Amino acid sequence: MIDRNIIRALVVETPSVPGNLGKVATAIGMAGADIGEIETVQVGTTSTLRNITVHCENEEQLKEVLKAIRGLKGGIRLHAVSDDVLRAHEGGKIQMKSRLDVRSLADLRRVYTPGVADVCRVIQKDPEKARLYTGIGNSVAIVTDGTAILGLGDIGPVAGMPVMEGKAVLFDRFAGISGIPILLSTRDPDEMVRTVKNIASGFGGILLEDIGSPHCFEVEERLKRELDIPVMHDDQHGTAVVTLAAVISACKSAGVNLKEAVVGQIGLGAAGMAICRMFMAYGVRQVLGADKSDVAKERLAEYGGEPVGTLQEITERSDILIATTGVPGLIKEEWIRKGQVILALSNPKPEIEPETALRAGAAYAADGRAVNNVLGFPGIFRGVLNARVPKITHEMLMAAAEAIAESTKEGELVPHPLNPRVHELVAQAVETVAQKKKS
Amino acid sequence: MIDRNIIRALVVETPSVPGNLGKVATAIGMAGADIGEIETVQVGTTSTLRNITVHCENEEQLKEVLKAIRGLKGGIRLHAVSDDVLRAHEGGKIQMKSRLDVRSLADLRRVYTPGVADVCRVIQKDPEKARLYTGIGNSVAIVTDGTAILGLGDIGPVAGMPVMEGKAVLFDRFAGISGIPILLSTRDPDEMVRTVKNIASGFGGILLEDIGSPHCFEVEERLKRELDIPVMHDDQHGTAVVTLAAVISACKSAGVNLKEAVVGQIGLGAAGMAICRMFMAYGVRQVLGADKSDVAKERLAEYGGEPVGTLQEITERSDILIATTGVPGLIKEEWIRKGQVILALSNPKPEIEPETALRAGAAYAADGRAVNNVLGFPGIFRGVLNARVPKITHEMLMAAAEAIAESTKEGELVPHPLNPRVHELVAQAVETVAQKKKS
Repeated sequence: MIDRNIIRALVVETPSVPGNLGKVATAIGMAGADIGEIETVQVGTTSTLRNITVHCENEEQLKEVLKAIRGLKGGIRLHAVSDDVLRAHEGGKIQMKSRLDVRSLADLRRVYTPGVADVCRVIQKDPEKARLYTGIGNSVAIVTDGTAILGLGDIGPVAGMPVMEGKAVLFDRFAGISGIPILLSTRDPDEMVRTVKNIASGFGGILLEDIGSPHCFEVEERLKRELDIPVMHDDQHGTAVVTLAAVISACKSAGVNLKEAVVGQIGLGAAGMAICRMFMAYGVRQVLGADKSDVAKERLAEYGGEPVGTLQEITERSDILIATTGVPGLIKEEWIRKGQVILALSNPKPEIEPETALRAGAAYAADGRAVNNVLGFPGIFRGVLNARVPKITHEMLMAAAEAIAESTKEGELVPHPLNPRVHELVAQAVETVAQKKKS
Repeated sequence: MIDRNIIRALVVETPSVPGNLGKVATAIGMAGADIGEIETVQVGTTSTLRNITVHCENEEQLKEVLKAIRGLKGGIRLHAVSDDVLRAHEGGKIQMKSRLDVRSLADLRRVYTPGVADVCRVIQKDPEKARLYTGIGNSVAIVTDGTAILGLGDIGPVAGMPVMEGKAVLFDRFAGISGIPILLSTRDPDEMVRTVKNIASGFGGILLEDIGSPHCFEVEERLKRELDIPVMHDDQHGTAVVTLAAVISACKSAGVNLKEAVVGQIGLGAAGMAICRMFMAYGVRQVLGADKSDVAKERLAEYGGEPVGTLQEITERSDILIATTGVPGLIKEEWIRKGQVILALSNPKPEIEPETALRAGAAYAADGRAVNNVLGFPGIFRGVLNARVPKITHEMLMAAAEAIAESTKEGELVPHPLNPRVHELVAQAVETVAQKKKS
């Protein structure tokens, strides 16, 4: 998903007279951009220097913002435009680090030859010991072929690397997991499966990431079947977990009984199909789905969902309507009926604006900005790695969704993603289910 | 290579009377074990507690050491035997870490969505930018199939992981490089090449490690030819670099002119063959080689070396004799002639003990304990990654060997591996040659 991804820091000087910051903020807002943090760099006697972060939809909008600020009168000056995002990425966002010091020959003999040979022999005798004496059990390969990078599409794995590194950053920060980006230069499902299998023994789990539909289904299903470590395609199941969590919270707000409700999913790609399956696994009896593709609708029927012919029909029949199509404005205001819960998740523009849906009678409406996968995958993998189970099941994913929903403050859709407690609770919930599975 | 790889820390209490530590040390030495550091843990009024590190060749020897200490009289007590090596390996030796903090939503939007999309687009437009905005250009895959782990042989890639992690530790500590272990569960050369090629775009270089002979030759040659990033098999070329450096230093000590000398190599496996090629590239006109395998001798002839039929003949004809066979005592004392330089590199027992060779008239003799690859690969990869060249050439490897030799103190064979200056000088030497190559 992608929204307002042009982020710049503007260094703006304003005369120290009340109202000037308001003028700058208004100029930015009128150009259609969002304002992030505002940091005061320097307060002088006559003027104030501030670092204002702006989020724009595209380069054109950024240009308009800059033009608008430059056009302001009364001594307001734009000093610099800096690209903090690119600057933060210089040299890459991750690095493989030693967990041990090497300060003496004794250290060297311990971590490398000759001492290491003894550790190798211990593992040779009992391969399970690799979980204890190597990092394998704490590492997850983040695998992509670059065919569906965010909303950017098929831009190739190297251009997708910043996303994979971003996932590795989040694995480290929120779950203490070693995330290893693996860029596949093949997009042939056989070859992808074969390659991942050939390198899988070095990892405790596999996170498939930004792999296009429909080949993502085959790749994930085969790897799950043929490997004995957990495999998860985040764009499918990570998204489904966070969506289910958001819907649980929205239903609570709207007073809707989720399991008795009719859930409609518009768009049956990687995310949409996984969302349908997740709701069915959760116990929702009637899950409807709509898509342009007949193949996708057949696949939904195989999983036990009900394909629906028109958008109007699915919208009218659903108590809870979710959309992941990437098509802005797809859902018409007049189709909405009173009391519905609407999650129009496409970025940067939703299938229907939440305000429009609410005006039309929806009990609860939200767009995709809050539904961020970061709430799911770090804790999910922490849980299964702790439990050392070979599979991630729907039960575990539902436990993750419930943990997220339980951590959500009343009236909000999801919890704050930087709250470390959320990730701990997700990990615990998943581990608990996984341990039961084992025993 | 492998030697005395059973390392234990013994907690020994001795009455505070002079001579007691001597008794303990003698007991250890008489059992045939080596003593590493001795740390005084506690000095009491009547007794002293020490942590004594011992290095044994095998479990039997360790048992003898423990028995000998337990048999000591006069109040000497063995309190505990701890395995510091295994303890150091708990949880693995490496971890992928974020280089950035994620403390605010603004941080999250910078390192992950939506900000990251802008970085992806920058790389999509200009793929060279991946070197700047991702860690690809600073990372090296450490690839093994586990077929020749140290001197342990074919123990499989997972049991070899501690070695791969050890290499990653050294990459981090000595060169600031992100070393990523990749364990291949195939040992078919075609499949190995195919797999590495499929994942190579995520790395700035490939270090092949502990891959058996002869398939290591094919795998390395094909990857070098088919990839546009540096590829090096450390057991071949890393070993050859450090061996050349040691021979340069030994020749200096012994007053031998290396380029005019006859160099003989006993054992033409991965290391031995690369050593021959390195000496030929260095300008040594006569390089002899001996091996049980006729195929290996033919390969040597193809590279321009001279195969020799018997060990006695090669020993007698060589001014500088190097052995990497793994067979202790292979070189007979009576074959040695006055003024020779002998490097019997096999571990744990050399082909001829240095003392024996010196007694027989050798001008310089050493075994393999000092010839440690750690002196080579970190600086070599730092140099080529800095220069962004697609290949590691013999010229670069020779520059590395010369830098190591120049850093060696007079009378020593190689420099201290923990001296960071050595690694810097190797990197600079390699980078300088690489930059010339580019221009």
